[in-house]
Amino acid sequence: MSIYLDNAATTPLSAEVLAAMLPYMKVHYGNPSSIHMIGRKARTAVERARRSIADCLQASVGEIFFTSGGTESNNLALKGAVRDLGVRHIITSELEHHCVLHTVEMLEKAYGVKKYFVSQSEKGHLDLTSLEQLLQDLSNKDGQVLVSLMHGNNEIGNLLDLDAVSIMCQNYGALFHTDTVQTFGFYPIDVQKTKVHFLTGSGHKLHGPKGVGFLYINDEINIQPNMLGGSQERNMRAGTENVYGIVGLAKAATLAHEQIVENEAYISDLKHYLMEELQQMIPDVQFNGDPSGRSTCKVLNVAFPANKESELLLLHLDIAGICASGGSACSSGVDVGSHVINALQLDNNSINIRFSFSKYNTKEELNILLEKLKTILKINTLDTKTI
Amino acid sequence: MSIYLDNAATTPLSAEVLAAMLPYMKVHYGNPSSIHMIGRKARTAVERARRSIADCLQASVGEIFFTSGGTESNNLALKGAVRDLGVRHIITSELEHHCVLHTVEMLEKAYGVKKYFVSQSEKGHLDLTSLEQLLQDLSNKDGQVLVSLMHGNNEIGNLLDLDAVSIMCQNYGALFHTDTVQTFGFYPIDVQKTKVHFLTGSGHKLHGPKGVGFLYINDEINIQPNMLGGSQERNMRAGTENVYGIVGLAKAATLAHEQIVENEAYISDLKHYLMEELQQMIPDVQFNGDPSGRSTCKVLNVAFPANKESELLLLHLDIAGICASGGSACSSGVDVGSHVINALQLDNNSINIRFSFSKYNTKEELNILLEKLKTILKINTLDTKTI
Repeated sequence: MSIYLDNAATTPLSAEVLAAMLPYMKVHYGNPSSIHMIGRKARTAVERARRSIADCLQASVGEIFFTSGGTESNNLALKGAVRDLGVRHIITSELEHHCVLHTVEMLEKAYGVKKYFVSQSEKGHLDLTSLEQLLQDLSNKDGQVLVSLMHGNNEIGNLLDLDAVSIMCQNYGALFHTDTVQTFGFYPIDVQKTKVHFLTGSGHKLHGPKGVGFLYINDEINIQPNMLGGSQERNMRAGTENVYGIVGLAKAATLAHEQIVENEAYISDLKHYLMEELQQMIPDVQFNGDPSGRSTCKVLNVAFPANKESELLLLHLDIAGICASGGSACSSGVDVGSHVINALQLDNNSINIRFSFSKYNTKEELNILLEKLKTILKINTLDTKTI
Repeated sequence: MSIYLDNAATTPLSAEVLAAMLPYMKVHYGNPSSIHMIGRKARTAVERARRSIADCLQASVGEIFFTSGGTESNNLALKGAVRDLGVRHIITSELEHHCVLHTVEMLEKAYGVKKYFVSQSEKGHLDLTSLEQLLQDLSNKDGQVLVSLMHGNNEIGNLLDLDAVSIMCQNYGALFHTDTVQTFGFYPIDVQKTKVHFLTGSGHKLHGPKGVGFLYINDEINIQPNMLGGSQERNMRAGTENVYGIVGLAKAATLAHEQIVENEAYISDLKHYLMEELQQMIPDVQFNGDPSGRSTCKVLNVAFPANKESELLLLHLDIAGICASGGSACSSGVDVGSHVINALQLDNNSINIRFSFSKYNTKEELNILLEKLKTILKINTLDTKTI
């Protein structure tokens, strides 16, 4: 029996989502581009899914494009912006996901794009004054500016003020791309109120399937596809549609939005419970990011004091059946530490572990985690609580 | 009740494949990049799947890279060859899939690559003398040559002699990419015997899932990824792996290879039965491509004599519950006719319908099709058979 506290890496597929997908795996197997009955059934499902995603964002259906996931969506937004929209300057941050950072690096090398990092606080918040300064400096230069900043950080959970950034981008005529892979379905986003040009979402972070995501592209702008071939996705993304993936993504998004307030309250309660219990148990524990401040409910990045007990903590937790993470899953195994934690330039010598939660977690699971931590870290409760 | 004769567009997911996928949808939902138990379970599944695909081709596991499908694989091979391997000349044919043709067009425009078409016969066979002439002419020019030719044509079914092309490419030092989306799992391919540099396969054409495919990359060559981000697929394709998709693709490929001889015999028998019955029923029927010659068992592209009965034949078949195609699914709805049929420059004024078969089709289904055709085309059997 395992306890899964790595929901920022991926989430269990929900039973309702699987149930929605199965008819398209068993019966309605058509290619949506086929014009016969079986194809039309698949086409209808894809277009209904597009409507669902659009509704979650208050977007129009023509602004939603299905992809193979968040990475592909971010690649498409960034490359499209540079290739087709005259972008010569990209403002981003050191705390972004590698699929943004590495794509921007490629665009620097291959297209001569200039990159600028918004500075961040020790708590991992981006400095919006620094962003505004960059926008102002660039307003005198040639070439379109793109701001690419994620909504919720996958490692430390910090939330960006999308509205403030959106308004700033509008004031300076910059394009705005936001990766909402960690927040879509957890925090409401209304593109009518918060203007963005590109917005990325993924299925498997909200109890939907892997291998599917979407890119919202504001209908004011036009980019060319990265994936060339057939005319699928109105010529924006060639390749036979992953019909059950798309159906599953839409179902997961719809369920998440129906329960968005309750889920946030429930998951947030889990996070704060774990925070408080850890503080009680380990007086010198710290938290990376700003979990008491502007932060997603999903992520708690704990800085355990380094000592011989905590050294192999993640491994001991794994042996005890508890799944957590030392950084983003995409960087795991690459033993260079987390680029996000490194960017915060913290001087503490800590063992950093990311616990990330879902609606399927319970306080009972967290109590088991706390008990295991006591054992692994050899904490005598009498020492740490006032009796 | 419908009869599905559009298996070149997509195939029903087999029950065995779905059964193999379900544990990874229900239980082993981990992110393969996570180092904990649940992640490792997913990682093991992905690597076992890679072994299965490699075994089907006699490749090494390090040569198999999972993608979101055939289109992505073809895009990766072509762009990688130009960007990273010095390719300046691409020899291809007018009969390729749009995901090859449109990518080559982009490479012409964006990278100044030169494109050359191998000529083809009226029956849709590529002229290997023309290929050799092109290779010879280009051997005096600067820049690497890439030959990109599909193994089995998706619209007319013609098979390329992979061995002959492979040897020719080796003789002239050209790289060889082949799209085997229509033939992988239907005809044995041994990359130890038939040297290729890139080979593309897809899940949903062999009763596997949509949204997943692979690219074989010969380990003699090194290209950079198109999809940038995490270090998945040994830095060749970023993005969380579509674990159940990959498991399903591998299962489908393994099943197909276990039954490759029987399936080919069975499906081939269906094709020839339909051919013969059509010839009996409609004396002036013709077939596009060369279904009696070097051709896949899967596809029969029928040229019905044009008349007022056959004009809306596909629509009438659809109403009768029979799913077939007027061209490739990827081009359906785009009312410009098939680029493959157009390229053959046939002077017949015919209604072209592609019937494509799978192991799940039966002669009983074909008999129903034949009966429906009689009714729709108002054929009096007494007129067409000698009594």
